[in-house]
Amino acid sequence: MSDLDSNSSNAGQPKTAERHAEKMAKKKAARNKIMATKTKTGGLLVVNTGKGKGKSTAAFGMICRGIGHGMRVGVVQFVKGKWETGEKKVLEAFPDQVTIHTMGEGFTWDTQDLGRDIAAAEAAWAQAKSMMNDPSYSMVLMDELNIVLRYDYLQIDEVLKTLKSKRDELHVIVTGRNAKAELIEAADLVTEMTMIKHPFRSGFKAQAGIEF
Amino acid sequence: MSDLDSNSSNAGQPKTAERHAEKMAKKKAARNKIMATKTKTGGLLVVNTGKGKGKSTAAFGMICRGIGHGMRVGVVQFVKGKWETGEKKVLEAFPDQVTIHTMGEGFTWDTQDLGRDIAAAEAAWAQAKSMMNDPSYSMVLMDELNIVLRYDYLQIDEVLKTLKSKRDELHVIVTGRNAKAELIEAADLVTEMTMIKHPFRSGFKAQAGIEF
Repeated sequence: MSDLDSNSSNAGQPKTAERHAEKMAKKKAARNKIMATKTKTGGLLVVNTGKGKGKSTAAFGMICRGIGHGMRVGVVQFVKGKWETGEKKVLEAFPDQVTIHTMGEGFTWDTQDLGRDIAAAEAAWAQAKSMMNDPSYSMVLMDELNIVLRYDYLQIDEVLKTLKSKRDELHVIVTGRNAKAELIEAADLVTEMTMIKHPFRSGFKAQAGIEF
Repeated sequence: MSDLDSNSSNAGQPKTAERHAEKMAKKKAARNKIMATKTKTGGLLVVNTGKGKGKSTAAFGMICRGIGHGMRVGVVQFVKGKWETGEKKVLEAFPDQVTIHTMGEGFTWDTQDLGRDIAAAEAAWAQAKSMMNDPSYSMVLMDELNIVLRYDYLQIDEVLKTLKSKRDELHVIVTGRNAKAELIEAADLVTEMTMIKHPFRSGFKAQAGIEF
């Protein structure tokens, strides 16, 4: 695991209460000092990529959190049928705050028609742009946009130009594996979800609450 | 980026509609074949770890998805104040399906009292165990349990023993950086969130909808 906290090399060793208090006080002071330098606010371009799970789920969590803060949020799904009953039921509890557009057809293992896929991607992108331009939205999620970009159904140059000129206060979240390097370069917050272990490997099938 | 899809080495090249259809049909057949071997169902032990963002947010998304499926879910927060207004407002829209326990005191940069931290961790763990034993819950999230384990506020042996003997149908989700190797070993689904880019680096402060 690459996940070691370099500030805490003694973790796991028995410590006295006094040493603990001292260490925590130091950590707190260091943290406060760092946080005081963070003063900018503004809409972020967020990218969740990688082969692991949690890209769309974390984006869905972020959308829900925005709803909790009273924001109006828009969702464009570039892969049909990705968000199923589970997610939709929760979002439907907040009808005034949520708009969902699902690409009518588009990239699935079932469509095998390139022309139709491209037309569907373009229609979904038009929806995304229209929500980006509508100031009533504080957050727009473009779920699986990376897949559509990877297959060149949309041109990265046009997408980047639009994302870079978004309203300052708008958060845009893009998900999907294989994020293009140019998109990562333009983004403010990029997380790669890495698969360490997947239940399919032990023969589990997709289950409610986990995969959908 | 380690995120390359080995099945798709030609992605990004211009392709004819015919080649595309053929390729997609092959992918679909391969996928169907693989999925047919996945027949097990049952509660999973899910771990979201790593230094990147999205560990708790993806867990929150999973909890929301469970709620959408009509599940009853329990949340134990091992770090005080981690889930703020955003998450809570959404969960409170489903009062019959959600129980949240927040460790009264416990690991924050503000507590510097080892004895109190350990007592708080033990109390929160007791809550988690009680929900694990209550068959009305389909999902229990132990948010930031990894931090408490890392500082040895709870003993990994006792926690593992309990997790391994959970009800078959119960999903348990554990979050926090620095997941212990023994926990990863016992888990069914492990994702490491890797930070590629963080807005703090460009001077952005924590913002509603993004960090809280």
